Amino acid sequence: MDFSRIRIVLVQTSHPGNIGATARAMKNMGLEKLVLVNPKDFPSGVALGRAASALDILDKAEVVENLEDAIANCGLVIGTSARSRSIPWPVVDPGECAEKLVAASAQNDVALVFGREDRGLSNDELQLCHFHVQIPTNEEYSSLNVASAVIVLCYEIRKAFLQAAEGKPGNSEAGKDIESDELNWDQPLATVADVEALLAHLESVLIKLDFHDPENPRQLMSRLRRLCTRIRPDSMEINILRGFLSATEGQLGSKNKKQD
Amino acid sequence: MDFSRIRIVLVQTSHPGNIGATARAMKNMGLEKLVLVNPKDFPSGVALGRAASALDILDKAEVVENLEDAIANCGLVIGTSARSRSIPWPVVDPGECAEKLVAASAQNDVALVFGREDRGLSNDELQLCHFHVQIPTNEEYSSLNVASAVIVLCYEIRKAFLQAAEGKPGNSEAGKDIESDELNWDQPLATVADVEALLAHLESVLIKLDFHDPENPRQLMSRLRRLCTRIRPDSMEINILRGFLSATEGQLGSKNKKQD
Repeated sequence: MDFSRIRIVLVQTSHPGNIGATARAMKNMGLEKLVLVNPKDFPSGVALGRAASALDILDKAEVVENLEDAIANCGLVIGTSARSRSIPWPVVDPGECAEKLVAASAQNDVALVFGREDRGLSNDELQLCHFHVQIPTNEEYSSLNVASAVIVLCYEIRKAFLQAAEGKPGNSEAGKDIESDELNWDQPLATVADVEALLAHLESVLIKLDFHDPENPRQLMSRLRRLCTRIRPDSMEINILRGFLSATEGQLGSKNKKQD
Repeated sequence: MDFSRIRIVLVQTSHPGNIGATARAMKNMGLEKLVLVNPKDFPSGVALGRAASALDILDKAEVVENLEDAIANCGLVIGTSARSRSIPWPVVDPGECAEKLVAASAQNDVALVFGREDRGLSNDELQLCHFHVQIPTNEEYSSLNVASAVIVLCYEIRKAFLQAAEGKPGNSEAGKDIESDELNWDQPLATVADVEALLAHLESVLIKLDFHDPENPRQLMSRLRRLCTRIRPDSMEINILRGFLSATEGQLGSKNKKQD
């Protein structure tokens, strides 16, 4: 089993005990790669204590400034979300989440992202994710400890790996479809950085077209972001779309020159 | 959902933090009934701190002297076991464990039993159980924190309850997932005709931009068609994309008029 392409990302964790407990939970389930976005207190003796024998995970943990840096080279990003947001996003359950991550990790680095203890992930952070995963909980008390969420989802990842290793089709038909889609595709998936560049390019063209006013954006860019993350474009498609935008810009440029 | 007949039993827990974390994990998953066999340190402020908002579970927790007393009136008892024992016993995985507990709880009180932090359950205690449940872990580091084991198994119990409540036999089906995504979406999905109109519009703009030559199309439109069908756009997204194409056309038209 090779879990090296699946990373666990903790965003702005306040309590170092949760970082240590996450390392232990990851190692229990065979995961290795931990990325910490702007942790409040790390390195920390408390984290070491709760990590028990998973100190190697903490030693190798990478610390970065923001979520974009943590996931830039990932082909699939799934974020944990306790509740539904203003703009609905594709939601998967823990089993589907695990199947998608395991299938995609055959071709790409992938990330599973956990938010702050008190507020989870921000809307902007959630919109960097292809899917949101919700762990079914008691409606009256849905606030899972972050390390508890980590162990549940890493446990599902291990189950999905074991099923894949046994050649079993997995829990959900959706997982099988994704797997065969990704393995049979003729182009590598675009990375998060590719999609971010596409969105920036698209926004600049929309502004030049007077179609988008950044001073009064309504939900336009959020909706386009949701669309672009949902479609999970491949690298050829990104090239086509960027070429289309460049061609549009070229025409606008020549028009503007004529108007000058 | 009625979880009142499923009890969680912790045997001789050393660290009160684990009792608190167990209470929180139980409440997250909707379970209520906690029985403590001869805990080392309880009641305890540390347990209260880790329980967060699950203080009611701790308040109602029952403390008994030995495992026999904890499970006396139960019709099914499943014990957690990290490794196989000298005497082989019927072993279930977490999903089977949950299904058995949920099914049996319709008729009987049932118990799920967790052992000591350092030594788990004794052979005598394990032999009081009808089944042993093993959580699949990394062979090189199988020592799960007791609260982590609790959250994983309670999560499986909640899943089994939800499946039983829906009258479904277990694993999810692709159809259901897609249906629920569609029901939760904020916009109706585009029709096939909408997507076809978008593709026709896109092709005409690409031709006007000299980006696409219908006499020498290569695979451009095929790739864009595959992209547009895969994304399953909603009607708002179609409107945004059509608006963008129209704005582009408008600019091109005014440019062409100036050139005339």
